[in-house]
Amino acid sequence: MSIIVQKFGGTSVGSVEKIQNVASRILEEKNRGNDVVVVVSAMGKTTDALVGMAREITSRPSKREMDMLLSTGEQVTISLLTMALIQAGQEAISYTGWQAGIETESVHSNARIINIHTEKMTAQLESGKVVIVAGFQGMTPSGEITTLGRGGSDTTAVAIAAALKADRCDIYTDVDGVYSSDPRYIKGARKLPSISYDEMLELANLGAGVLHPRAVEFAKNYQIPLEVRSSLEKVEGTYIEEEASMEQNLVVRGVAFEDEIVRVTVFGLGNALTGLSSVFTTLARNHLNVDIIIQSQTDKDTTNLSFSIKEHDLEEALSVLEKNQDELGFTHIEHERDLAKVSIVGSGMISNPGVAAEMFEVLAQNDIIVKMVSTSEIKVSAVVDQVNMQKAAGVLHTAFKLDAVKVEEVTL
Amino acid sequence: MSIIVQKFGGTSVGSVEKIQNVASRILEEKNRGNDVVVVVSAMGKTTDALVGMAREITSRPSKREMDMLLSTGEQVTISLLTMALIQAGQEAISYTGWQAGIETESVHSNARIINIHTEKMTAQLESGKVVIVAGFQGMTPSGEITTLGRGGSDTTAVAIAAALKADRCDIYTDVDGVYSSDPRYIKGARKLPSISYDEMLELANLGAGVLHPRAVEFAKNYQIPLEVRSSLEKVEGTYIEEEASMEQNLVVRGVAFEDEIVRVTVFGLGNALTGLSSVFTTLARNHLNVDIIIQSQTDKDTTNLSFSIKEHDLEEALSVLEKNQDELGFTHIEHERDLAKVSIVGSGMISNPGVAAEMFEVLAQNDIIVKMVSTSEIKVSAVVDQVNMQKAAGVLHTAFKLDAVKVEEVTL
Repeated sequence: MSIIVQKFGGTSVGSVEKIQNVASRILEEKNRGNDVVVVVSAMGKTTDALVGMAREITSRPSKREMDMLLSTGEQVTISLLTMALIQAGQEAISYTGWQAGIETESVHSNARIINIHTEKMTAQLESGKVVIVAGFQGMTPSGEITTLGRGGSDTTAVAIAAALKADRCDIYTDVDGVYSSDPRYIKGARKLPSISYDEMLELANLGAGVLHPRAVEFAKNYQIPLEVRSSLEKVEGTYIEEEASMEQNLVVRGVAFEDEIVRVTVFGLGNALTGLSSVFTTLARNHLNVDIIIQSQTDKDTTNLSFSIKEHDLEEALSVLEKNQDELGFTHIEHERDLAKVSIVGSGMISNPGVAAEMFEVLAQNDIIVKMVSTSEIKVSAVVDQVNMQKAAGVLHTAFKLDAVKVEEVTL
Repeated sequence: MSIIVQKFGGTSVGSVEKIQNVASRILEEKNRGNDVVVVVSAMGKTTDALVGMAREITSRPSKREMDMLLSTGEQVTISLLTMALIQAGQEAISYTGWQAGIETESVHSNARIINIHTEKMTAQLESGKVVIVAGFQGMTPSGEITTLGRGGSDTTAVAIAAALKADRCDIYTDVDGVYSSDPRYIKGARKLPSISYDEMLELANLGAGVLHPRAVEFAKNYQIPLEVRSSLEKVEGTYIEEEASMEQNLVVRGVAFEDEIVRVTVFGLGNALTGLSSVFTTLARNHLNVDIIIQSQTDKDTTNLSFSIKEHDLEEALSVLEKNQDELGFTHIEHERDLAKVSIVGSGMISNPGVAAEMFEVLAQNDIIVKMVSTSEIKVSAVVDQVNMQKAAGVLHTAFKLDAVKVEEVTL
């Protein structure tokens, strides 16, 4: 008997009717003879509504209290979904994050899972029940409720799959798979039948949005095969596994993009040796995620540092740095808003030098100025003006031959 | 330094604005130099909305899953109220029922508190924080979320007051005290300055609705002085304490009434000796609350039994009894709907015989037929047709001189 973990996102459980639809998808899997654990998010716009109430009270809500507030969203979904399964004649039981044994570090609003105590879930599966778990949430060893950050339900699902040694983890969502780029913006974007963990990881980190990056990391580390598929249509989705089995000939597999990027530049760091680490240690201590980092030495005594950060973290980042100006020893800070990041991803890049050069050439031919660059073995990211984001993604998608040309459509 | 427990009901926290108002009431108490623990219910119509969603899915939702669902309501309130206090500069922390150490028996939807582990609350009070606790909910020793039944937030508040040896427990509500009868229906009903636990207990049990009976029981057992007062107006409420200090001369202190009563009659119980206990053991085992019980022996071998029950428990009571017909040994069951219970309460009755007789005479003079009767040392209840309920309460209120005649209104 196989263990299958299924994850349904907020759109998939957005109404009572949709919850009943999800129940029937779960039953199909259970009736195939598998043990099923289901992870769900909050219903549709619930999280936004809760955030809205908090904002009416304060512009800077306590992170602990936000976790307390937001974690109610999934708790509503798990109980309703469990009722729907019981109503359909299938024994089921709901667990909040803490009841399911999901232990996290003691950080609010963005905690990482450190352990999953599976005893309860295993006992319920053995008794024939479907186990419905609240995604996105966990508990610290001292009994505090934490959340994993937006998209954390994916992480919950994959982490449970790893802990239970599940055979597969299916991520049901409102799109039917992973695309070569976002089809809402890029004409010709097409669904990929499969993709490797590393490629997906780069795409997830780059804002492709289908899957939470931490979830992909977990899946890669524990070798959990994922399938991203539609909760509405019964069609094949995209498999994510160790080696993408098809289309090895494509150097670039996808183009991702992300807006609301800000470039922050710290000028005149006195100590070139320790300046870099102390700035980023200070930011990390405040749980501010920095993306691209560029260091430049203007003369032998002072260093300038640029980094990119999400718009919503800007205010806190500036305030943290300014508070520590004396200790960090810089002269002043500047920032540039309204930027975006466009990235090409593909494991074929490792054996194909010159991909970055080709990317920059394509952007230059289209009069798009590159402001920051970051590369890994399987991706190249360029920061451009936000107004150029969609255009940049489109021309790269075409240049790297990602436009859909299905075999059956080829006419001679 | 005193410890004060405050409880705010659903209407008092029905909107973000009202939550901010509650925060300022808490601050007033805290600023008097007291340690404050606050117990809150779900916001306004939240519980009804959650029940509505469950009903869309199933007509008989699992009680465990209902507890899972409903307990989210208070969790939303505690986090928002805590944010409001922090925003106002007062350190505060929210706790769900399980975090606050509220341990209950393993019964869903109507659990009783069996213990309160106060370590966390005490530590937070000592650090100067206001502690905000979700009412109405607790946790079983095995980690299941339970609820205490409607009105259970009162019980949470009083139980916490007892466990922390609080100096007072203030029940803030949308009325400004305990009345001699329900002023919405009975002209001349007036606010009582004080009332004894026993009188309040009878009133609470009789459906006066201001305070949950279990809460009053707890308060009596642990001698916690209660004050029922308005969350909106700053006026004196009603004190509930061991001996009502005023108006000892009044024999009857209040008139309570309650609709949706059904009389069930079980005919032909074969075994007069064990029939009574076995019927009610069967009902109790299914957590069905029976109120008035009347037994009559028609001949020496068979017994008929009548009992009153709330309308919403009727279906389950009938099904439970019919399922056990062979074992219980009765011939058939009948029931009569659309009844109501009207009761007079007052500790002065103990030393005033003839109060019950006077009650029946008043009802008879007004052509109101009494269908069942129940008495205790300090109350007399009569079951009447529901259409007569309000009239019965009104004539009794007048007959026992409960109509308001304020001293300043007396003209000579």
